[in-house]
Amino acid sequence: MPTIVVDVMPKAELLDPQGKAVAGALNRIGDSAFSAVRIGKRFELTVDGDVTDAVLAEAKRVADEVLSNAVIEDVVGIEVVE
Amino acid sequence: MPTIVVDVMPKAELLDPQGKAVAGALNRIGDSAFSAVRIGKRFELTVDGDVTDAVLAEAKRVADEVLSNAVIEDVVGIEVVE
Repeated sequence: MPTIVVDVMPKAELLDPQGKAVAGALNRIGDSAFSAVRIGKRFELTVDGDVTDAVLAEAKRVADEVLSNAVIEDVVGIEVVE
Repeated sequence: MPTIVVDVMPKAELLDPQGKAVAGALNRIGDSAFSAVRIGKRFELTVDGDVTDAVLAEAKRVADEVLSNAVIEDVVGIEVVE
């Protein structure tokens, strides 16, 4: 069954303390290749049937209105897989 | 600067109550195109300098050992962007 993947990340200008904590932990355990970590969400929406233009438009609307909080987050990707 | 994106999802055999709640909410507000929703995490690891094979191997190890809990989650994707 086709799946629409929606990626949501905290806005670049926000601090993302969760990501900062992980970045600090990685440095402490010696994994110093990464200078920053940001943590967002990945939604997999399963679609019954075909992904028509209407379904894709609905996914975009849902991503903006339900799955993300526009004040603090950006929808960085919507793609169909399978 | 290059970024390594790590996607982590709850294992398929687990319930994912968070996703179930979102799927129920979408149905209630009339967005019925989606039969299921699963919610995972998206990590963006910023790399200083080039993404060498060693850095990519480190990212894979970190994804398995630090960013995901192998008991309940799968690393579903590791890709370099930019």
